[in-house]
Amino acid sequence: MSKPQRHVFVCNQNRPAEHPRGSCAAKGSSAVLQAFWAELQKRQAYEKIAVTYSGCLGPCEKGPNVLVYPEAVLYSGVAPSDVEEIFNSHLEGGTPVARLLAPATVW
Amino acid sequence: MSKPQRHVFVCNQNRPAEHPRGSCAAKGSSAVLQAFWAELQKRQAYEKIAVTYSGCLGPCEKGPNVLVYPEAVLYSGVAPSDVEEIFNSHLEGGTPVARLLAPATVW
Repeated sequence: MSKPQRHVFVCNQNRPAEHPRGSCAAKGSSAVLQAFWAELQKRQAYEKIAVTYSGCLGPCEKGPNVLVYPEAVLYSGVAPSDVEEIFNSHLEGGTPVARLLAPATVW
Repeated sequence: MSKPQRHVFVCNQNRPAEHPRGSCAAKGSSAVLQAFWAELQKRQAYEKIAVTYSGCLGPCEKGPNVLVYPEAVLYSGVAPSDVEEIFNSHLEGGTPVARLLAPATVW
């Protein structure tokens, strides 16, 4: 990839089902990651947006978590159905999606 | 984690030994990741620096690759022995380590 304007990191950390912290993978992050990659392909936005999976981003109990740089915007509780809005508003429009922001207490 | 001043993503993508792209994991990225986490612990810098593993960052043939945000600085060919310098110069000092920068042709 070339240097993107915005880089999306989708937490795909997994933990055993009985683990007390839970995990983004257990909350459906693989489907979120696939939705980001599908939307990226649909828009053919590879030159300006990158989507990468990552390890734990911190607030596991609020996952799936998605982190966007360079703004350092953390989204929590992201569903595949939120991905189109994140692209339109934030990744291509420059305005983060307020309703999905992680609380200031965790980020 | 709280929002860090700098966030380090260490590619830990793995691929089969015979895969034509190779991978950062095959080039030793797990040891690089462990070195970053160890240095973070040694410095107790958790409030300002985050270290997370990630999927593929692009230039597999030049790995192990390490990406630092918010500056979007990509390092290639990183060894565990480079990690202390990256902390001193860049993560805590603000000056990227020029000799490790990925070439402009790939980032």
